[in-house]
Amino acid sequence: MRLTTFTDYCLRVLTYVGTKDEGAVTIGEIAKHYSISRNHVMKVVFRLGQCGYLTTTRGKGGGMRLAMAPSEINIGTLVRQMETDIDLVECFETGNNACQIMPACVLRGALHQALGAFLAVLDKYTLADLLRPKAELSRLLTPSA
Amino acid sequence: MRLTTFTDYCLRVLTYVGTKDEGAVTIGEIAKHYSISRNHVMKVVFRLGQCGYLTTTRGKGGGMRLAMAPSEINIGTLVRQMETDIDLVECFETGNNACQIMPACVLRGALHQALGAFLAVLDKYTLADLLRPKAELSRLLTPSA
Repeated sequence: MRLTTFTDYCLRVLTYVGTKDEGAVTIGEIAKHYSISRNHVMKVVFRLGQCGYLTTTRGKGGGMRLAMAPSEINIGTLVRQMETDIDLVECFETGNNACQIMPACVLRGALHQALGAFLAVLDKYTLADLLRPKAELSRLLTPSA
Repeated sequence: MRLTTFTDYCLRVLTYVGTKDEGAVTIGEIAKHYSISRNHVMKVVFRLGQCGYLTTTRGKGGGMRLAMAPSEINIGTLVRQMETDIDLVECFETGNNACQIMPACVLRGALHQALGAFLAVLDKYTLADLLRPKAELSRLLTPSA
């Protein structure tokens, strides 16, 4: 059981952008700091833009900024949006009822309940919580001289 | 986010074996009923045997049976045993601390808490709960004449 790398990177990108108060942030900067490929960061930034979390400006001094307050970015909501395959088992997929015992399956209900509990914990967090140790985050995300 | 097919099949195999009170169950029977490959079922049965959930007898009339009472088979424990990759994000792996912000990461704690909530729900279930609709399961797992 694992979150996708995509969701993981979405959370890291938002944390990075949220930590930088001054000026816009570039894709190259994020890729360098987390040691992840520019290509990955580009896809993540595009999707976060589509979902209204980031705005991007072009040209000199351009880059991305948060498009909403960190306290408005809910982590549970974000994970639901980014995890395209949040179906814990095959029968969670819409239209997939290949399993013989589905009509009498107690496990399906138990797994739904467990997934609900997982997401309910994340629903209690916003990006503002993730940014609380801001001074330390800022230090960790600043290149050493 | 998804359980592995292996864990899914472990749960299905135990449900099947637990539903059949009379006589031992064969690998071929399970493979046929769930439409999954014999090879997959064999691997799953081997592992469930290793973990003490199933016993197997050879020869004519042989096959597998539960090695403990269904009420003693806890679903949370089983999922922890079978999910070799229950590390939600890369930094959960022992020895992997490549992420720049790990020392100040609030998300890591939130994800640990969410995973705990997920497993805590499954800890409340045993195989006996999964077998509660036994008459219906038995009907669904019996070949139509």
